[in-house]
Amino acid sequence: MKVAVYRKEHFNAAHRLYNQAWDDAKNQEVFGLCNNPNFHGHNYELVIRVCGEIDPDTGYVIDMKYLSQVVKEKVLKRFDHKNLNLDTQEFKHLNPTAENIAVVIWDLLRKELREDLDLKIYLYETERNYVEYPVQ
Amino acid sequence: MKVAVYRKEHFNAAHRLYNQAWDDAKNQEVFGLCNNPNFHGHNYELVIRVCGEIDPDTGYVIDMKYLSQVVKEKVLKRFDHKNLNLDTQEFKHLNPTAENIAVVIWDLLRKELREDLDLKIYLYETERNYVEYPVQ
Amino acid sequence: MKVAVYRKEHFNAAHRLYNQAWDDAKNQEVFGLCNNPNFHGHNYELVIRVCGEIDPDTGYVIDMKYLSQVVKEKVLKRFDHKNLNLDTQEFKHLNPTAENIAVVIWDLLRKELREDLDLKIYLYETERNYVEYPVQ
Amino acid sequence: MKVAVYRKEHFNAAHRLYNQAWDDAKNQEVFGLCNNPNFHGHNYELVIRVCGEIDPDTGYVIDMKYLSQVVKEKVLKRFDHKNLNLDTQEFKHLNPTAENIAVVIWDLLRKELREDLDLKIYLYETERNYVEYPVQ
Amino acid sequence: MKVAVYRKEHFNAAHRLYNQAWDDAKNQEVFGLCNNPNFHGHNYELVIRVCGEIDPDTGYVIDMKYLSQVVKEKVLKRFDHKNLNLDTQEFKHLNPTAENIAVVIWDLLRKELREDLDLKIYLYETERNYVEYPVQ
Amino acid sequence: MKVAVYRKEHFNAAHRLYNQAWDDAKNQEVFGLCNNPNFHGHNYELVIRVCGEIDPDTGYVIDMKYLSQVVKEKVLKRFDHKNLNLDTQEFKHLNPTAENIAVVIWDLLRKELREDLDLKIYLYETERNYVEYPVQ
Repeated sequence: MKVAVYRKEHFNAAHRLYNQAWDDAKNQEVFGLCNNPNFHGHNYELVIRVCGEIDPDTGYVIDMKYLSQVVKEKVLKRFDHKNLNLDTQEFKHLNPTAENIAVVIWDLLRKELREDLDLKIYLYETERNYVEYPVQ
Repeated sequence: MKVAVYRKEHFNAAHRLYNQAWDDAKNQEVFGLCNNPNFHGHNYELVIRVCGEIDPDTGYVIDMKYLSQVVKEKVLKRFDHKNLNLDTQEFKHLNPTAENIAVVIWDLLRKELREDLDLKIYLYETERNYVEYPVQ
Repeated sequence: MKVAVYRKEHFNAAHRLYNQAWDDAKNQEVFGLCNNPNFHGHNYELVIRVCGEIDPDTGYVIDMKYLSQVVKEKVLKRFDHKNLNLDTQEFKHLNPTAENIAVVIWDLLRKELREDLDLKIYLYETERNYVEYPVQ
Repeated sequence: MKVAVYRKEHFNAAHRLYNQAWDDAKNQEVFGLCNNPNFHGHNYELVIRVCGEIDPDTGYVIDMKYLSQVVKEKVLKRFDHKNLNLDTQEFKHLNPTAENIAVVIWDLLRKELREDLDLKIYLYETERNYVEYPVQ
Repeated sequence: MKVAVYRKEHFNAAHRLYNQAWDDAKNQEVFGLCNNPNFHGHNYELVIRVCGEIDPDTGYVIDMKYLSQVVKEKVLKRFDHKNLNLDTQEFKHLNPTAENIAVVIWDLLRKELREDLDLKIYLYETERNYVEYPVQ
Repeated sequence: MKVAVYRKEHFNAAHRLYNQAWDDAKNQEVFGLCNNPNFHGHNYELVIRVCGEIDPDTGYVIDMKYLSQVVKEKVLKRFDHKNLNLDTQEFKHLNPTAENIAVVIWDLLRKELREDLDLKIYLYETERNYVEYPVQ
């Protein structure tokens, strides 16, 4: 009787898409407007999905207040109102695409949850572009 | 060639999170504001997902008007504008968390649908907290 | 050069529509499902609109962090996760319709803001039913 | 390390639900209002989900600008501001239910994508009725 | 102490933008895709705003159930799942732009409401294009 | 018979709130996280409201395709995927708060519209914080 619970959080950040191994022309060709040297930004909507058995005492899969607190501590403090390229260790040498940000957030949260709980991340860069990780 | 169809319905209800086996202090510690003795409430958004083959005569997996009618009859009549703890049999002795409500709704609807159709429930307690049942 | 700024907050509450001067039959006739004796509930979305001149030093009409803090202190603490009829002074003898809740919230916030700032309240009881106060 | 990326597009179209093998009475009985002989219409929201490995050079599963361009070329040009029953080859003899439209769009896009990428379609006919194809 | 209440309804319809006094080339030049001879369609979101004093007995400006019933009877029955150009008297000789539809709906509802209540219509043709009538 | 039409557009940008006349401590105290020296960013939702008489020939207040084109040319090209502080003339010496951005956009668009049309700007910095300009 497995249930998945979803918690939606958000953060605002600046970023620039950029491959350090490429010259400017190649970066411009591949990333276009997203390669603007002075950065641009987004309101990221972050959805955390945790899947497990219902605890018969609480009726919860996981306490949403606890989950929200963990996300604030481990993800939002790190990325909210930051420049992902300049202000974070994680994206010093990793291109901050939505795909890569989702994987990084999964790595940050995976270690905070009990092993029997499955974790999945949805990250909305805009209302029209979003990603899901992992998928089988 | 299986397709899943989704139908969104909603109901408004009052509830209180509460474990009858625990004393007040323990209930307060675990459920916090959600344990308010005089209840609080939500606009529940309910999404029903039904998965099956397309009927070549109708082009439908299931007639959405029929599905909506079943949900009204079996779920909304029971829970809409009700106090889940006091006005329903289902939650007399079961804590009305989003997880448990989703399981109860699945049980109510499962018996109304043909066996070859898969059923899944999504229940939004708020825009930021929601659940999915069942998951493999 | 007047600008209006909007801040959206939310709270969850239980309520019952009920006129204490009427008998049960009359209450049932007028308020229908909303008169359920054991209450029902909503996710209230609250939008506060403050209108004034832009402060040339800050570029703000009002600091949104301050406005959000005032709303939390004066409105959300009072109504969030509460039974409006039983747990609040304001609705002991006032029917908690969306219209009346909006007027009460305006009264609570009006005294917290500088006199040169105009205040308006939008309150969403559901996605399909909402109110605005005041209007000329 | 598979990631799914989603791109949301939209188109507006007229349609009529109708089985050419049935008489008018049967069509009316099954499809009701949706069988209006002069058509009705929808704002279709189309979500394309593409699943694959992250390209280490770009940080992308697929370039969203490219994906959006393909959808415009192969789907939107064909269906946007059209009468699905009268103006398209695809629905000359196929009932344009949401289920069938999703399958047709999948067929149109599947051949445009690399074979190692998985493709799924979500199609919203209204905010309350939508479909997903394929599902296992 | 005037309050405005809003009620959101929706209908689906087909239409074609077309000026009967112009030739085809002129219609195509002005209305472009919206002039498709076989029509296209929309999910119209209709918001009705009614402004007046709060009734001290009910706490209502107007009973939302009554308002919703009037809108169903006078507007939705007429336009839902219809072809505005072919199936309605109102748009036989009037171009069914969002602007004109809003004015027509206001005329239909104005005569159904008490004179002391102000009426305003918001009509969403798409999420990105909408209109408001009347404005001073 | 005046009608207002609304057109929704969006752009993504980086910015930093900062008063050049203040020292770092004062900027930090007033603007907090929004003063991050390396910027942060937003998905700005921009709603343009144009109010005027309906043209009896077209049924339009203004052609939405034209309005959208003007906004793209005069606003989106200037601000989309840009750093407002570093990449634009308008905010070299003006703090890019939502209030100031709305006034700047109004100035850019006002000169592009016929004088008999009223113009108003709504700018959403996040789903929870937005502004309106001008207001009487």
